[in-house]
Amino acid sequence: MDTALLIDDVRLTPILIADPPLLNTQGVHQPYTPRLVVEVVTRGGVSGVGETYGDGSYLELAEPLARALRGRPVSDVNGLFVLADEVCGDSRAADDRVDAGGLRGVQTADKLRLSVVSGFEVACLDALGKTLGLPVHALLGGKVRDRVEYSAYLFYRWAAHPSGGEQDDWGAALDPAGVVAQARRFARDHGFTSFKLKGGVFPPDQEIAAVRALAEAFPGQPLRLDPNGAWSVETSLHVAEQLGDVLEYLEDPASGTAAMAEVSAGTDLPLATNMCVTTLAELPEAFARGAVQIVLSDHHYWGGLHRTRELAATCRAFGVGLSMHSNTHLGISLAAMTHVAATVPNLDHACDSHYPWQTEDVLTTRHTFQDGHLAVSDAPGLGVELDRDRLAALHRRWLEDDGTMRARDDAAAMRVADPRWVAPAVPRW
Amino acid sequence: MDTALLIDDVRLTPILIADPPLLNTQGVHQPYTPRLVVEVVTRGGVSGVGETYGDGSYLELAEPLARALRGRPVSDVNGLFVLADEVCGDSRAADDRVDAGGLRGVQTADKLRLSVVSGFEVACLDALGKTLGLPVHALLGGKVRDRVEYSAYLFYRWAAHPSGGEQDDWGAALDPAGVVAQARRFARDHGFTSFKLKGGVFPPDQEIAAVRALAEAFPGQPLRLDPNGAWSVETSLHVAEQLGDVLEYLEDPASGTAAMAEVSAGTDLPLATNMCVTTLAELPEAFARGAVQIVLSDHHYWGGLHRTRELAATCRAFGVGLSMHSNTHLGISLAAMTHVAATVPNLDHACDSHYPWQTEDVLTTRHTFQDGHLAVSDAPGLGVELDRDRLAALHRRWLEDDGTMRARDDAAAMRVADPRWVAPAVPRW
Repeated sequence: MDTALLIDDVRLTPILIADPPLLNTQGVHQPYTPRLVVEVVTRGGVSGVGETYGDGSYLELAEPLARALRGRPVSDVNGLFVLADEVCGDSRAADDRVDAGGLRGVQTADKLRLSVVSGFEVACLDALGKTLGLPVHALLGGKVRDRVEYSAYLFYRWAAHPSGGEQDDWGAALDPAGVVAQARRFARDHGFTSFKLKGGVFPPDQEIAAVRALAEAFPGQPLRLDPNGAWSVETSLHVAEQLGDVLEYLEDPASGTAAMAEVSAGTDLPLATNMCVTTLAELPEAFARGAVQIVLSDHHYWGGLHRTRELAATCRAFGVGLSMHSNTHLGISLAAMTHVAATVPNLDHACDSHYPWQTEDVLTTRHTFQDGHLAVSDAPGLGVELDRDRLAALHRRWLEDDGTMRARDDAAAMRVADPRWVAPAVPRW
Repeated sequence: MDTALLIDDVRLTPILIADPPLLNTQGVHQPYTPRLVVEVVTRGGVSGVGETYGDGSYLELAEPLARALRGRPVSDVNGLFVLADEVCGDSRAADDRVDAGGLRGVQTADKLRLSVVSGFEVACLDALGKTLGLPVHALLGGKVRDRVEYSAYLFYRWAAHPSGGEQDDWGAALDPAGVVAQARRFARDHGFTSFKLKGGVFPPDQEIAAVRALAEAFPGQPLRLDPNGAWSVETSLHVAEQLGDVLEYLEDPASGTAAMAEVSAGTDLPLATNMCVTTLAELPEAFARGAVQIVLSDHHYWGGLHRTRELAATCRAFGVGLSMHSNTHLGISLAAMTHVAATVPNLDHACDSHYPWQTEDVLTTRHTFQDGHLAVSDAPGLGVELDRDRLAALHRRWLEDDGTMRARDDAAAMRVADPRWVAPAVPRW
């Protein structure tokens, strides 16, 4: 094999990026959120970029993996999993250190490892594509569509963080009128025609009213509501009954496969998840119990773009729909999402993305949505270019942080406004 | 995208290759069997090869697909399925023309189309790899092993075809001693340590005796028996009981998912299949009913190497084992099998291959098994070279055939010896 493909260096750059005060059932986004930028540099002098979660627990796994990667070909992405098992073996014993819940579903050391691998896999594919002159989608067998649809990701939010941080001009959105105004701006600026509201923030009837207001403002357009598992089965069924005529799907109304299956049995409204199914091992039970009709894939959770394609194939086999989940992310991950989404035949719904909320990026050129879609790049690799000055500035912010922002903690951010706040137990309602 | 990757020409060469008089429950292999060699030539002047079934029904679908491929990039293998649906659309109406059973499982127009696509996909990947200087396994994310294990594929057989054809020096194998002698030669010549006997030929107790004889000759080594669905549930359970202590798995003892599930419920012996599960659509029922513990993938059936990887991932998710099935094939397909097998983490058993029975090939160099394994090639593409003189000679044989060999028909071949033979209904015993 061409030695130009061998990995010469791997750079890990933890950064803090500005995040607006978006509300969810656990609390509120902190003013800054950590991300990890992975750069893989080949002996041929080509640099590939990837991006993943930047919390300390991810960094801890990324460092030994980065060291072990040197000298291996960037084309060897299947081997990343074997390598991660080897070099992160000790941290397997750390299963009990990680969260047992939260917005990302049940956390395990295995899932942390897959999320870390995803950043390296994307960086390797970017470097490979740049070396070969092929777009990442071609490395995945080629695109089956020229553009990928995204939905507007609506949030209840405050106008500003109580602790300061960057200020944007969106203002607060805390009632149906605020949510509709936010949706109108997303539709105007980006052309989105599909809307998702992050729920679980207010008592369900207030969120039902917000979705009803969206349905009036955007008649016939796809709408979704996602309370992050905050509701009981009974509440979920109440919401499903109230909104069954206007929702495209209900996302994670209740927590866990058993509760989701109960909800599903009681309604015709499709249920989507990025919480009760986040690994291959969780699929069989969820499918057998009919707990979900749509899996929201996330290439970070699932271990990269190849694994996302494999999830898509499994969903296809079982007649389960597929779309994409998003947490706060930058343009590197958005490019990766778009490449893999372009290759999957059964992408049945517009993908989620937080990207429009991110005022900061590490790319020289921001992605631009047209009519709610992103064009699939045919440039080599991901088709993005790192802005090293921006990266350095955001890394300096991470270095200068006293540690409070280096791990995402929405409950801690909420306590700035409400000192007695604790992340609510589920079901909250 | 580099125009050197665009497909300039596609050549389809149907050939007839010599096949020994190997017996199965449907009849006996004909003296010659049809295969189709697919060559994809890029504007850059690179030629990639693939191989698939060569029966008339496959050729009929391959021709319009070959025409439609011109001008498309060889990297666009996901698009082959979309294209095949478009150009072969008319033949969808032909579902009732194809076999409703036989050795390859239930045949449908959809499966025919996937088998045809597989030949094109492999040819495209070979051309892409050669152009980029990468082995096919690297185009699939990279190998996770350096060699792939194969098993000896034992057959009851005659010394010669009653109608003539090529003669080999294996002699007949029609009883336990003959089967053991065949196994010893396979072990000596190729180093195989795992053995599969094609059964369904003689009453089950004779085949039980043959497997017992193998177990005595090769104590502790993995053994398999495959009657191609010829047995009733009761007979299958009898065989499982008699051979449970020596078999690695029992392959397709009974026909169809329902019967396989019944057998499985009555024995601890794992069941493998290449008949009741041959498409993604057949997986959910088979998995839900616990009908199979090992899926024998075949990249021809499943639509190529990417699809084989997707099947592997689905099996992994559901805790189902994976290995590989084989029909009569040449070295092109053996190379393709080896590349994809090298990339799949959960390859739990030695793969099947008819290749040692094939005295003819279209390659300049035959594959060589070492200790029952094939080394995974790191040369660009598949790492094989077409012998155009041999290809031309085998194509002449196809041209000169009066049509009797152009579609595989094991029952017709059997009627040469036994004019009253009809392929037995299942269960045969």
